[in-house]
Amino acid sequence: MKNYIKHDEWRVIESGFHAEYNEITESLMSLGNGKMGHRGNFEERYTGKTLQGNYVAGVWFPDKTRVGWWKNGYPDYFAKVINSVNWIGIDIEIDGEIVDLGKCEILDFYRELHMQHGHLMRFCKLRLQNGKEIRIESIRFCSITHDEIGHVDYEVTPVNFDGLIKITPYLDGNVQNRDANYDEHFWEEISKKSEGKRAFLQVKTKENKFGVDRFDLAVGMDLSICLGGHAREVDFETVQSEKYIGLTFSVFAQKSQTIRIVKKVAVHNSTNFFPDYLLAECEKSLTNVADLQMLPLQRAAWKAKWENCDIKIEGDESAQQGIRFNIFHLLQTYTGQDARLNIGPKGFTGEKYGGVTYWDTEAYCIPFYLSAVDFSVARNLLVYRHNHLQKAILNGQKLGFSKGAALYPMVTMNGEECHNEWEITFEEIHRNGAIAYAIYDYINYTGDASYLNQFGLEVLISISRFWSQRITFSENLKKYVMLGVTGPNEYENNVNNNWYTNYIAVWTLKYTLEAIALVKAEQEDYRRIVGNLNFEEAEETERWNEIIGNMHLPYDENREVFLQQDGFLDKELLSVERIRQHRPINQNWSWDRILRSCFIKQADVLQGLFFFEDDFDQETHLRNFDFYEPMTVHESSLSPCVHTVLASKLGKIEKAYEMYVRTSRLDLDDYNNDTEDGLHITSMAGTWMSVVKGFGGMRVKNTKLHLNPILPKNWESLSFRVGLKDNLVEIGINREGIIVKNLSEKEMEFSLFDKEITLAGMDEFVLHTEAA
Amino acid sequence: MKNYIKHDEWRVIESGFHAEYNEITESLMSLGNGKMGHRGNFEERYTGKTLQGNYVAGVWFPDKTRVGWWKNGYPDYFAKVINSVNWIGIDIEIDGEIVDLGKCEILDFYRELHMQHGHLMRFCKLRLQNGKEIRIESIRFCSITHDEIGHVDYEVTPVNFDGLIKITPYLDGNVQNRDANYDEHFWEEISKKSEGKRAFLQVKTKENKFGVDRFDLAVGMDLSICLGGHAREVDFETVQSEKYIGLTFSVFAQKSQTIRIVKKVAVHNSTNFFPDYLLAECEKSLTNVADLQMLPLQRAAWKAKWENCDIKIEGDESAQQGIRFNIFHLLQTYTGQDARLNIGPKGFTGEKYGGVTYWDTEAYCIPFYLSAVDFSVARNLLVYRHNHLQKAILNGQKLGFSKGAALYPMVTMNGEECHNEWEITFEEIHRNGAIAYAIYDYINYTGDASYLNQFGLEVLISISRFWSQRITFSENLKKYVMLGVTGPNEYENNVNNNWYTNYIAVWTLKYTLEAIALVKAEQEDYRRIVGNLNFEEAEETERWNEIIGNMHLPYDENREVFLQQDGFLDKELLSVERIRQHRPINQNWSWDRILRSCFIKQADVLQGLFFFEDDFDQETHLRNFDFYEPMTVHESSLSPCVHTVLASKLGKIEKAYEMYVRTSRLDLDDYNNDTEDGLHITSMAGTWMSVVKGFGGMRVKNTKLHLNPILPKNWESLSFRVGLKDNLVEIGINREGIIVKNLSEKEMEFSLFDKEITLAGMDEFVLHTEAA
Repeated sequence: MKNYIKHDEWRVIESGFHAEYNEITESLMSLGNGKMGHRGNFEERYTGKTLQGNYVAGVWFPDKTRVGWWKNGYPDYFAKVINSVNWIGIDIEIDGEIVDLGKCEILDFYRELHMQHGHLMRFCKLRLQNGKEIRIESIRFCSITHDEIGHVDYEVTPVNFDGLIKITPYLDGNVQNRDANYDEHFWEEISKKSEGKRAFLQVKTKENKFGVDRFDLAVGMDLSICLGGHAREVDFETVQSEKYIGLTFSVFAQKSQTIRIVKKVAVHNSTNFFPDYLLAECEKSLTNVADLQMLPLQRAAWKAKWENCDIKIEGDESAQQGIRFNIFHLLQTYTGQDARLNIGPKGFTGEKYGGVTYWDTEAYCIPFYLSAVDFSVARNLLVYRHNHLQKAILNGQKLGFSKGAALYPMVTMNGEECHNEWEITFEEIHRNGAIAYAIYDYINYTGDASYLNQFGLEVLISISRFWSQRITFSENLKKYVMLGVTGPNEYENNVNNNWYTNYIAVWTLKYTLEAIALVKAEQEDYRRIVGNLNFEEAEETERWNEIIGNMHLPYDENREVFLQQDGFLDKELLSVERIRQHRPINQNWSWDRILRSCFIKQADVLQGLFFFEDDFDQETHLRNFDFYEPMTVHESSLSPCVHTVLASKLGKIEKAYEMYVRTSRLDLDDYNNDTEDGLHITSMAGTWMSVVKGFGGMRVKNTKLHLNPILPKNWESLSFRVGLKDNLVEIGINREGIIVKNLSEKEMEFSLFDKEITLAGMDEFVLHTEAA
Repeated sequence: MKNYIKHDEWRVIESGFHAEYNEITESLMSLGNGKMGHRGNFEERYTGKTLQGNYVAGVWFPDKTRVGWWKNGYPDYFAKVINSVNWIGIDIEIDGEIVDLGKCEILDFYRELHMQHGHLMRFCKLRLQNGKEIRIESIRFCSITHDEIGHVDYEVTPVNFDGLIKITPYLDGNVQNRDANYDEHFWEEISKKSEGKRAFLQVKTKENKFGVDRFDLAVGMDLSICLGGHAREVDFETVQSEKYIGLTFSVFAQKSQTIRIVKKVAVHNSTNFFPDYLLAECEKSLTNVADLQMLPLQRAAWKAKWENCDIKIEGDESAQQGIRFNIFHLLQTYTGQDARLNIGPKGFTGEKYGGVTYWDTEAYCIPFYLSAVDFSVARNLLVYRHNHLQKAILNGQKLGFSKGAALYPMVTMNGEECHNEWEITFEEIHRNGAIAYAIYDYINYTGDASYLNQFGLEVLISISRFWSQRITFSENLKKYVMLGVTGPNEYENNVNNNWYTNYIAVWTLKYTLEAIALVKAEQEDYRRIVGNLNFEEAEETERWNEIIGNMHLPYDENREVFLQQDGFLDKELLSVERIRQHRPINQNWSWDRILRSCFIKQADVLQGLFFFEDDFDQETHLRNFDFYEPMTVHESSLSPCVHTVLASKLGKIEKAYEMYVRTSRLDLDDYNNDTEDGLHITSMAGTWMSVVKGFGGMRVKNTKLHLNPILPKNWESLSFRVGLKDNLVEIGINREGIIVKNLSEKEMEFSLFDKEITLAGMDEFVLHTEAA
């Protein structure tokens, strides 16, 4: 755990340069606007530790699969969002020395991500190797009002000399992915040009053997120069090489006279325009924003964004910073405007896991986007999967399933499976259940049942078909069984009858039957769906009902707990306390030792209780929590949040808080020593759940709000807003009581500690707690 | 299945060139002498389909591990025997055209591996692109009397012209492994030189990052030239480039006048000599053999070799060729003179699997070498593992075991684990049992119990320690269980309580206790071993006894069969007949589908019955065979032989023969479409077992011969010899009866169909069977 980031309500601050942590800071201070983003790299050259990264949503490359030993069914490629044109770069040269923070003396340094305003600011004072001292200040952001626009406002000031400063803002496509399977460069140059204070570069992903369309990416930059506060005309000289274009100019500055470079950048790609139009689109964008004051626009837009999704915590600045940091990055990563996009595990903050889509989206992210932003955002995440239905069916076929059975991929960009570990790729099939669950979750929350008619039912039927083929009837048990799976607890592989997977499979079948009944009301929609899918209702649903009634769900009669899988009790059941010095086991133990131990990466039985909580009474929750929690090592960043929610529900506030602390500052404090690779974006949504569903005790059932709040001991207060079908609600919890404000005109009903309350429009309800 | 190889008792014949099968033929016609070997490549250049390969036993490179996703515990490198200096090469140039069988017209072609004589012969008549016709004849072998010597006797004759022929015999180190993980070249040049009719090249394996010693390899050639049958002095010109040296000369030959080149080659490497001495050793070797008639020597030596290990089958030429082919390659691959060497799965016939050692050696090869050649050969195979004991203990430590627990590697060259699939590397631990079993097998057969004192007991104790740590006590079952293993049936991964593994683990513990009792008789030896291992006898053996008495061995009370693993009965149990059109499933099914099916790659319960047959009655054998055989797809080349032996024992002669046919001509007929990669050397020993232990019904129990022969319906007779502790015995089986000849002076006792018979020295016993 590191502790060099200053605690602050709204800002992430590095004061004084921590070169050894630079890649961590770069991750923390990443910027994005849903359409593009980049890590908090320096504009100048830097030969120290750095992971240089610029990413454009939806622009990726099929990187040829690398394996030790090929297994039938492995995909040919791993789709990865690729490091793209570096557009932040500005070279500074003084007396032949190019400024490089890795080579000069850093006299002063301050870097700050302002989460309320949505920009990254940096100040530093440097002594070059030649003794000259300069001051640099920069503010940078990706515009959220014009999402193709990037903005760098950069100042350099000589401190102890008068002299000529040579400056080269540039666009550079000579970039690589650190995790490229075969160390390939993925970009080829298409064209470049300069026109006065503008330069443009168009690149294209290279040819591939997998039939994947290539992407064109064009970037344009527009420069404005000031000296000592006054606009200055300069002569730009074009410098160019393969995939690189820069505009060089030199300015004679007197001591303390500031040279300011405003570099506006436009980024367009072929997912939205024909390749031939891209450069013109960049020009148009640059012209459109030429005279706009982008920074005030950005600040105002971010302030507005925060209005309804902020969470306020009093009495714990570190927790306050943590939760805002999580929300900020979630908002930067995905805006829900384009159903072709999804939420990569690292967002725009790093390369790891290739920026592809996991079940994290459905299981962890959707609740955040449902409550915090417009419903259309969550809906687009569902549509993304609907759009991939045909590919999921093909994926099922590839693995030997038939009749339209869909197996959604474990990781994907465009609907095709990319992962290549058999125990995950072929066996971690519970993802199919999460995709079905998200449809339920969305409709339950929003009341928008029409989604079923339009898209949802097709997905549900196709997934149910998969489950009905994936199970086997065991003559031995006289039950249906599910052999050879990996549950969310990836510390067990190829097990039989993972309780969570079996449960969610049966649930999917049931919910699909419900959904069929609902959609049938609209004969026309239903006929279309039946036709599209060749759905033989009578026959197929008969089998589903047969499975629903006869599924094997492992259970221990003695302890009265659900069993993670068949045979789980044959393990030596130990508490994690017994292996304290071995943790994290994923770094200290061989894989087989992990597998045969009882220790749990994330407890999937508890995940099931969390999803389907109303199916089980409080005692069942308690028994299972008390059985599994002590064996859980939480070595998935997605694990602690579920425990916070359950512990809160069970009144175990200390355990809940302990778990919360593990997630909320996971990246800020680099708990897992891996923040340098990028941030854990999807688990950030879990942190949001920890607060809102955990401490806030917030649930929405059939569009209606339910609250069972519980405040951590060291917090003075907690408040947040949630958007419901007909109401925007603000919930405040403090030592004196609970206040629920209806911020909309419409009357609302809600439940607080299981009491039904009706609240008029714009009214508030206050409950004074007895303890206070 | 291909059928282009002519059936012949002693020869493998390709008549007419089959370019499309050339890589298969190259594999089939590989040559070796235990110390080096090569594929049946052409001496001339060849641009067609070819896998060029020369290998030197014990000379390997640590090829950096390639994985998709790293797991803790994976090894850093995969040791592989590497393609080494090509010493067979002879370039022929006529009027500027270099002879290339891929480019000229082949008018006549004949290639023959003579198994009785141990050489490869080729004849061909070619029309070059320039219209000139030539005849080529060559005979090539790796000497088994001088195992550093290779010999090429090569003739070229102009057919339709008089003219100058330019000839360049060469040594070439510019070779690569097709399966190199990162396409690296593994050799660097050290030196080269020429002296008259001799040339030398010394190369060294390149640097590696794994602390593995580099190998030097030196090759020298000595040329003699004849024209029209008369020795001819020629002027050699040295041609050289990086890692290449050739000696060029030109001869004017008249039509039908034959130019003969005798290229004697000496190969030495740094496993036997200091690098600096290698070139001198090559010179010495060349000088030593200069005047020897190597070909007659080779023929005589091979004839002698065959004397006691031939198997004669009458009435089935194809079976006769098949069994000799298997024996020939086993004899070529391993001679047992160097305990640092072992038997790679492809021998000297290809690169696949890196030439490393598997449990195949102990489970399949040792019986052949015990019966067919001197006992010292099998003993050296045991010593090989003893020499690796410390590394096996380190391997155990790496995976979390302690107190000297040894886990032998799944695949290895020098004792270090090389494999990188977690389900194999960490979980296919039954190999440890096979290594223990081989010690028993050797002592049971030879009576040489002193091996225990010298080497065996240390290995047994260390393996027993592993088993005692690898098991877990299940509070649930009140039994010891073994979680997370892969049995010999690799179509199940990460299962609990694989019956075979559990059984052999318990057997190892029992046998170790017996061995301790035996060795204790020699107090001094025992004290040394206890000291070496810090063996705490009382405490450790108490635990072993506890495990022996309480191991969980899955069993089905209804069917009265052993269960392959926990939960096996929950599968859908189908016969392979039901999936006829899906086979081989390892090519047609995704990995998960294979895993959750009942289908068995090789039936490990049956493997256990085969190893420990006297622990079970005939009915148990029958029930288990009838249960598992129908589910077995035999997609391991090691599978059918066990079924032949068991089926023979159970009197199921048709099933036994069906299984036998699958192995005996596996490579000759390319059943599995993979002979081009090399031959299945270790499964050839299984074929030998099929005949001798299967049809011959031969067992040795505590050094005593037992016979229960059964003759396949279409064979007239079968005869073979086996070497026993005190006797050499020849067994003949035909339609009239059975004849057992004691070829040694000493009296022997043996059992035939469970009757005890005493046979005087040099006497024979004849049993006339009633059926005849």
